[in-house]
Amino acid sequence: MDIAKKGCFITIEGTEGVGKSTNVEFIRQYLSNKGIGLRLTREPGGTPLAEEIRELLLQPRDEKVSDDAEILLVFAARAQHVAQVIKPSLEQGLWVLSDRFTDATFAYQGAGRGISWNRIQQLEQYVLGDLRPDLTVLLDLPVDVGIARAKERGALDRFEQEKHDFFEKVRQGYHHRLRAEPDRFALIDASQSLENVQQQIAAALAEKLDIK
Amino acid sequence: MDIAKKGCFITIEGTEGVGKSTNVEFIRQYLSNKGIGLRLTREPGGTPLAEEIRELLLQPRDEKVSDDAEILLVFAARAQHVAQVIKPSLEQGLWVLSDRFTDATFAYQGAGRGISWNRIQQLEQYVLGDLRPDLTVLLDLPVDVGIARAKERGALDRFEQEKHDFFEKVRQGYHHRLRAEPDRFALIDASQSLENVQQQIAAALAEKLDIK
Repeated sequence: MDIAKKGCFITIEGTEGVGKSTNVEFIRQYLSNKGIGLRLTREPGGTPLAEEIRELLLQPRDEKVSDDAEILLVFAARAQHVAQVIKPSLEQGLWVLSDRFTDATFAYQGAGRGISWNRIQQLEQYVLGDLRPDLTVLLDLPVDVGIARAKERGALDRFEQEKHDFFEKVRQGYHHRLRAEPDRFALIDASQSLENVQQQIAAALAEKLDIK
Repeated sequence: MDIAKKGCFITIEGTEGVGKSTNVEFIRQYLSNKGIGLRLTREPGGTPLAEEIRELLLQPRDEKVSDDAEILLVFAARAQHVAQVIKPSLEQGLWVLSDRFTDATFAYQGAGRGISWNRIQQLEQYVLGDLRPDLTVLLDLPVDVGIARAKERGALDRFEQEKHDFFEKVRQGYHHRLRAEPDRFALIDASQSLENVQQQIAAALAEKLDIK
């Protein structure tokens, strides 16, 4: 991935029900107030083809999905998303905020499903080269609290149907990522009041991305 | 891919309109007459999920499909196909005949689209380990003859809509594969009479797979 990056690339991560959507909107508003043009997007998805791949991934199905098929679908969607949306936006000078990115693959497919991080890193290198987020906002919440919130949203997808233990592993996977690259992450305790959460997100954006 | 193979794994390859379907049926009949149980399958596809991925790949679309997304989708379908169909069948002692396999990826995405063989080999190694076909029947035909035959079948998919030059490269890609691994291939001139084609296929099966 050869990329002449002019904008900043932000990702937001966390397990089910941590409040990503609400805070995506907060970040959009915050950056807009600073006069920064933002492209909002999400994974898996972000282009028509990548959204169709998302559907394949999320829909509950009788057929057992092999670990390799799942992770290759994730990276197929990511390759399309990067080529069609992320790369051209960053090259134009837009900032990009993606609701989930490769850290989610390490957390869900890696820590959750047990795919070795070495195998994920091979695909990360294959698809992304050296493209990485400039800042990753990690919303952290005890698993039970998040699942209870996610259930209020209605029918559960193939991932949301997983058990408590799976999400516990996913949460630990995110923490593992954070420990490996602490400078890239802003860890936010999502069990606080929304006001506190958003104050901390704003502070992290200002500090890590040097926003005046 | 750790596999305790008991059956033989045969693939059949070629550009559009070379007569794969007719000769798949001939091989099935031939092996059945020898008392050999065969699992017929195809790529991309071969399982419900892999067939859904096939649809994503083949349907004409306005969005430009990035090379990486295309090849990752191909290998996602292949990973599912191998895990659900090819590996369990071979381990049971069934023989497997797949209408297209990885040689098609080298020919279509490699020679056709210009993806480097090194990149394809990385994914081949990632998904298949050392699983390879025991015999590949390559039906060879001048591109124009094949395209004319394919057009008689009706509406063209996203690949069939490619131009003559693309299929010329694909055909050369298959020949390149043949030169690299001549022992694995049976090259069949598909412009001959069907009777001659099938005599040569039968001779290749008998010789290469030691069928009495």
